Amino acid sequence: MREHKYDPVTPAVAEALRKIVGDKYVVFGDAEKLEPYSHDEVAEAEYAHSPECLVRPGSAEEIAAILKLANREHIPVTPRGAGSGLSGGAVPLYGGVVLLMDRMNRILEIDAENMMIVVEPGLVTNEINDKIRDLGLFYAGYPMSLETCFIGGNVAENAGGGKAVKYGVTGRYVTGLEMVTPTGEIVTLGGKLVKDVTGYNLVGLMVGSEGTLGVFTKITLKLMPLPKASVDLLVLFPTAEAAIAAVPQIMTGGGVIPTAVEFMDQTSVQAACEYLNESIPYQQAGAMLLITGDGSAPNPVERDYEAIGQQCLSAGAIEVYVADNYTTSERIWKVRRNIAEAFKVVSPHQSLEDIVVPIANIPAMVAGLAELSKKYDVAFPCYGHAGDGNLHATPVMNPTWTVDRWHQTLPAILTDLYKLTASLGGTISGEHGIGHKRKGYMPLVCSAAHIEVMRAIKRALDPNNILNPGKIFDV
Amino acid sequence: MREHKYDPVTPAVAEALRKIVGDKYVVFGDAEKLEPYSHDEVAEAEYAHSPECLVRPGSAEEIAAILKLANREHIPVTPRGAGSGLSGGAVPLYGGVVLLMDRMNRILEIDAENMMIVVEPGLVTNEINDKIRDLGLFYAGYPMSLETCFIGGNVAENAGGGKAVKYGVTGRYVTGLEMVTPTGEIVTLGGKLVKDVTGYNLVGLMVGSEGTLGVFTKITLKLMPLPKASVDLLVLFPTAEAAIAAVPQIMTGGGVIPTAVEFMDQTSVQAACEYLNESIPYQQAGAMLLITGDGSAPNPVERDYEAIGQQCLSAGAIEVYVADNYTTSERIWKVRRNIAEAFKVVSPHQSLEDIVVPIANIPAMVAGLAELSKKYDVAFPCYGHAGDGNLHATPVMNPTWTVDRWHQTLPAILTDLYKLTASLGGTISGEHGIGHKRKGYMPLVCSAAHIEVMRAIKRALDPNNILNPGKIFDV
Repeated sequence: MREHKYDPVTPAVAEALRKIVGDKYVVFGDAEKLEPYSHDEVAEAEYAHSPECLVRPGSAEEIAAILKLANREHIPVTPRGAGSGLSGGAVPLYGGVVLLMDRMNRILEIDAENMMIVVEPGLVTNEINDKIRDLGLFYAGYPMSLETCFIGGNVAENAGGGKAVKYGVTGRYVTGLEMVTPTGEIVTLGGKLVKDVTGYNLVGLMVGSEGTLGVFTKITLKLMPLPKASVDLLVLFPTAEAAIAAVPQIMTGGGVIPTAVEFMDQTSVQAACEYLNESIPYQQAGAMLLITGDGSAPNPVERDYEAIGQQCLSAGAIEVYVADNYTTSERIWKVRRNIAEAFKVVSPHQSLEDIVVPIANIPAMVAGLAELSKKYDVAFPCYGHAGDGNLHATPVMNPTWTVDRWHQTLPAILTDLYKLTASLGGTISGEHGIGHKRKGYMPLVCSAAHIEVMRAIKRALDPNNILNPGKIFDV
Repeated sequence: MREHKYDPVTPAVAEALRKIVGDKYVVFGDAEKLEPYSHDEVAEAEYAHSPECLVRPGSAEEIAAILKLANREHIPVTPRGAGSGLSGGAVPLYGGVVLLMDRMNRILEIDAENMMIVVEPGLVTNEINDKIRDLGLFYAGYPMSLETCFIGGNVAENAGGGKAVKYGVTGRYVTGLEMVTPTGEIVTLGGKLVKDVTGYNLVGLMVGSEGTLGVFTKITLKLMPLPKASVDLLVLFPTAEAAIAAVPQIMTGGGVIPTAVEFMDQTSVQAACEYLNESIPYQQAGAMLLITGDGSAPNPVERDYEAIGQQCLSAGAIEVYVADNYTTSERIWKVRRNIAEAFKVVSPHQSLEDIVVPIANIPAMVAGLAELSKKYDVAFPCYGHAGDGNLHATPVMNPTWTVDRWHQTLPAILTDLYKLTASLGGTISGEHGIGHKRKGYMPLVCSAAHIEVMRAIKRALDPNNILNPGKIFDV
């Protein structure tokens, strides 16, 4: 295997790619048109790298032909969905071809009888629920970026969802995949089956493999009955510590698994409210929990969540607002969903993190964040999926610093953050992935032998290291 | 890599093994004592093969040393739990060492705050729920053989559970593993984390890998709140067809995911009742559904299941019995759990199958079974997890045949059965695994490229093909 020494995309290779997908679906030699594909939602320029060529395939067969060509010509290929990723997963680190999946965006089959849907990877995730709501069904795995992200990217990253506490993340719903292997073979894994132990769990391996082990071309997702009742509680606490201390209690005290338990500190809520010109009553609260419950009938859901509201009050909450209709609920959730976007406006120099710890260790984590904030003299706003132990702690550049100082200090901040996370039994990514943004920090949470197992699998399936090289680990 | 040409366990190797685990934990050169480890619950002698040596390790470090030795000496090692497997997964096909995990049977930690439990692989699965019930928690992934099986075997096979329709199978609950790789490295994967995308989903790959990719030494399982209410419906139908036709309707019509939907045809119920000296009213019914529901309060559960009972009556049910107390419920479930054992008494010449199809195709599957039964003139009793599409159709030798004729005909019966399953979008194992029993039939449901991906992973992690060789596929 040659190491990272790829060959360039020559005009002859570009011509061969045009023959495979059609002239209009190849961009080559136009730096301006290629630039948007040099980055995802990780803003920092240091993580960006432009492709030499953009290819928009229309079928599994075309992707297979592209990958066979890439192996022959020794050119890296990086699959890309909506580019809404948060770890640089879709960045073509060594140039080569970006495989943009936006043309493969069809719903192939809605199978209500089997409670399954078969989609192409380029479908905007939100469209799934839009199309099946009237059938009394829903797809529970969707992430916060549901209005922009593609389902293929969700599967590649094993994206987390707003309903993950109760329903789990993307991976729980993927029962079948058609994919192209790094060497250009089309394989079908699983199907419309809720149980399947016929050989290795390759579907499970592919979910979250960040586009390094295969290119998905068809995705079969399990659907759930649309809950007939749901309620959101917006709970105001005096401090972040008080809010977070209530979480393990909520999770284990009531005998009910909430659908969501989201945490937002005051800085986060304020940023999102200003960004959206929204006015939820954040001023009086140091932090908030957004707790959602759902079920098959209103009465038990309401009773369960009245009890949870009471628990919160006993735990020191200032106020519990109940949102039991779509409009109010959507207003609150929109605030939560837009925090990351809002922070970008506040400061372009920040690092959106994705640590995850056992839920009982969240209070210790939040206390640790306060210490880190003091130690490095940087703000550390925090929000996230508290019910999953998954916190988007986000160190933000001290506005008095130079950008250079920020870049020089950030690795130390992240190292401390990740070491703290590891010491609490946690790890460095709950749902955003490693990509190349966090690759260098993997040894803080994975042993050499562990990383070597991953490398061995990568080498076995992608002997020329063609598919999305340089992500998760170096081969 | 040498192919299946292993070296024998010499007295010197046995001595080295004794040095690792202690004299009393090695059996060598005693055919009678080794014989019980030549088979699992697959009864047929043709699938059996004795080990040359039995080793009972006490720690991950000992297992690592054993595997390093085995790689050096080129001796196959087959991990074994309770031996309750149903596909020959624990059979040492090429002799060598059987690694019996029964000494590593401790509950290491019950962490109620995180709703997690950490156990060793040799723990009897049932003990988990016995130990955590009083804490208001339960482990939802347990299989039907819970009173005998080991949790390590459940993880290795990704065993299905009696509550899988609602709660999913073993794999959904495994959040962390400590394991020894085939080359003898100890690695820790995951942890007490409900979300984790730090690198490849190796926990997901290891679950269901049938002891071919690693030996588990610690298992972290996610727990659920113990449901505060549950109800069982035993629903009698005039025919198997009528019972099965009701299943997709129950699954999708009510907006409620039942905890379990079990199907038992008359032959199955009768066999189990006679075996247990139990008298549930099977005579009048061609088939039964056992439907379980649970939840956080009695009222909604009862209301949901009254509705399901009504649905069953509309679908042609003769009678709906409601079991709302533990004793009655346990009586019925005991019948269901003992069908496989009971069939062994009826006829030693049978093949317990484990096909799985999309739930909407269950009626077509059951119709196809009737045709196969006619075509081959063999009984084809059927029971199983209808709500998962997972049916234990079991061809039983025609009592007028010679055993030779049975053995000659069975491959044709199974080929037809599996082809039918595949044509209905199904596959050959939902929860029992491939082992070597179904290995030869893999090409009926997996393409050559698909099997090659599995082989490549096996070769990458086990270059000397030491760990449980000859299972799932040949390398």
